[in-house]
Amino acid sequence: MLNKMYTKMLGEKDIIFEIFNYSQKRAAQIGSENVYDFSLGNPSVPAPWAVSAAITRQLNTLEPLKLHGYSPSMGIVEVREKIAADLNRRYQTHYKAANLFVTAGAASALAHALRAVSNPGDEILTIAPHFPEYIPYAAGAGLKLRVVPADTETFQIPFEQLEAMLTPSTAAVLINSPNNPSGIVYSTATIKRLAEILKRKSCEYGQPIFLISDEPYRDIIFKGTDSPYIAAYYDDTITCYSFSKSVSLPGERIGYLAVNPDSRYAAQIIELCPQISRTTGHNGAASLIQRTAAEVCSLTSDLSVYETNKNLLYQALTEYGFNCVEPGGTFYMFPRSLEPDSMAFCRRAMEMDLMLVPGDNFGCPGHFRIAYCVPTERVKKALPVFRRLAESYR
Amino acid sequence: MLNKMYTKMLGEKDIIFEIFNYSQKRAAQIGSENVYDFSLGNPSVPAPWAVSAAITRQLNTLEPLKLHGYSPSMGIVEVREKIAADLNRRYQTHYKAANLFVTAGAASALAHALRAVSNPGDEILTIAPHFPEYIPYAAGAGLKLRVVPADTETFQIPFEQLEAMLTPSTAAVLINSPNNPSGIVYSTATIKRLAEILKRKSCEYGQPIFLISDEPYRDIIFKGTDSPYIAAYYDDTITCYSFSKSVSLPGERIGYLAVNPDSRYAAQIIELCPQISRTTGHNGAASLIQRTAAEVCSLTSDLSVYETNKNLLYQALTEYGFNCVEPGGTFYMFPRSLEPDSMAFCRRAMEMDLMLVPGDNFGCPGHFRIAYCVPTERVKKALPVFRRLAESYR
Repeated sequence: MLNKMYTKMLGEKDIIFEIFNYSQKRAAQIGSENVYDFSLGNPSVPAPWAVSAAITRQLNTLEPLKLHGYSPSMGIVEVREKIAADLNRRYQTHYKAANLFVTAGAASALAHALRAVSNPGDEILTIAPHFPEYIPYAAGAGLKLRVVPADTETFQIPFEQLEAMLTPSTAAVLINSPNNPSGIVYSTATIKRLAEILKRKSCEYGQPIFLISDEPYRDIIFKGTDSPYIAAYYDDTITCYSFSKSVSLPGERIGYLAVNPDSRYAAQIIELCPQISRTTGHNGAASLIQRTAAEVCSLTSDLSVYETNKNLLYQALTEYGFNCVEPGGTFYMFPRSLEPDSMAFCRRAMEMDLMLVPGDNFGCPGHFRIAYCVPTERVKKALPVFRRLAESYR
Repeated sequence: MLNKMYTKMLGEKDIIFEIFNYSQKRAAQIGSENVYDFSLGNPSVPAPWAVSAAITRQLNTLEPLKLHGYSPSMGIVEVREKIAADLNRRYQTHYKAANLFVTAGAASALAHALRAVSNPGDEILTIAPHFPEYIPYAAGAGLKLRVVPADTETFQIPFEQLEAMLTPSTAAVLINSPNNPSGIVYSTATIKRLAEILKRKSCEYGQPIFLISDEPYRDIIFKGTDSPYIAAYYDDTITCYSFSKSVSLPGERIGYLAVNPDSRYAAQIIELCPQISRTTGHNGAASLIQRTAAEVCSLTSDLSVYETNKNLLYQALTEYGFNCVEPGGTFYMFPRSLEPDSMAFCRRAMEMDLMLVPGDNFGCPGHFRIAYCVPTERVKKALPVFRRLAESYR
């Protein structure tokens, strides 16, 4: 018979899907320029030209058998060397190719990281608000995802609650900074304190609690934001990265998993990754895309529009009476909804053709996510609608 | 603690890896032209020029945001339409885009197919000799893989044994024709009889037994071989395909899963696929590669060298006293080893710098696999070594 778990997942109501469908319907009715769709985290700036140039160069210089041939299960060695060198240049780390495993985006990197450092039945802690897909990621690895409630004043880590939830069954803590959906970047003080707690608890339990750091937004940081390189503060860190946002290649499914070379488990973890691939059908990222990512790994798209949009929205929304922690990066913000039921709030917005995602989806009700990865003109045009929405609650 | 299952897999001795390492070592010592490496199933003919042309055309005509943007979780609609049209043209089928799910190669297609039609603990039957990776594929889906022993006279399906091994816990039968490692193609009579048994048993058990057909070698068929399109004979068939071999793109990780539209479960199975992706970190094949595959799906590389090589090898080996069922396709053959212990046989070949893979790896000891996806000159040069190997057993 058909699979029960996946059939159940299929039956679960997905508000993002509902919003997406409504948005499409309205676009057909009134024109897409009149729908203010802030529901999707899809980059709005094109990939750097260097991407096309790198693809063309490969087609012109590499023999097809080499270019399109099987790559090693860890990823192409030169690709891993280039990415390691770029990380070391940026963050004064000392990664080698042997610490990197090339993946089909951050989702694959997380699928491997979660499986490598746990056994079925173990617990994974994450911190609200969190990326909704952590739920199926953990389920697929046979893990219990436990969510530390949000500190809604700062969206930094609520340490007392985190510490109270750590147990000897905690295989890893999974964090996401810069954060989707809050846009908050964990400060150096936050990361230091997290590392101190994890070290102490690992010692107490006599086994490591790994830190899995999901960093697809690492390169979208706004002026003046303190943005530590997380692995530098905790040896047992696995960094999961995607080129989706930094060079606007979300469809090309390319990223990597990097194990901190200072972890005493570094060699073992990397060696487990190809074994994990054998059971999930992963078998590597596309060769052409691997080589392309390596060529452009030190670049980014022109990401400045995201900060421009954040400034416009943050200033306007604050003026309209919204309460919001100011983002330090990403292309998201996560204000409080104007009624406790953020689903109802987002439905009211939807009736004004303003597409927002309720915080319930991120384990943090009473808030909503704005994905402002859209042209600035679209943001400007939407501001009166946000004002109208706020006024409707007076 | 680190994962026990993957750590155990890592510890298992892999003869292919041993052969590969030895081959590399010998190539460094005596030159790769003096090592007769028939151990790897890596295409030896380049991708058609149309591949580069299709990539270049996309770079020149599609906006980067569209070209590299997120694709739907089922795969790009136009891509699925083109593949469906090509299948219908070739096999007089009636697939629609809605019956296709684009995957990162056949491994991903199988990972989805296995999970969709089963629940953890169910059984999957396959037929020896079989692709070794079916073992981790089944393990990853939480399934018991049971292997029907080979009919070594024909390498068609041994139906009595198959029927005896079917139980109400059998979720699916997994077949691979044209077959790796035997090169045998299941005949129309074989597929008809398989379909008859599966229909009867499904009826008896009151639930469907699915047929999962792994077909990466479908386009490598030698002259005069009867090669039925398998799904045409059994409604509850899921076809798993890869563009790795037909257009020599193994590194680009592109393939698809096609559910027979005549299955009453067709719609449900396809809908489960994106849910499965959410738990395995799949999230689709690279957009650029999806579009490229769709452009070239009606083409193949020049595959004629594989038949030339088969003819040379089959004739010579038969003359030298090897017993071999003549392949009908692929770039493999699977003769009997000249001693019952095929591991020992392959080690003796290795000492003559002839790299072969023992049948034990394919659930069929007493045989060995020759992967003749190499230049014909290499085959010719290797014939005296095969002769010497045969003579060493006289």
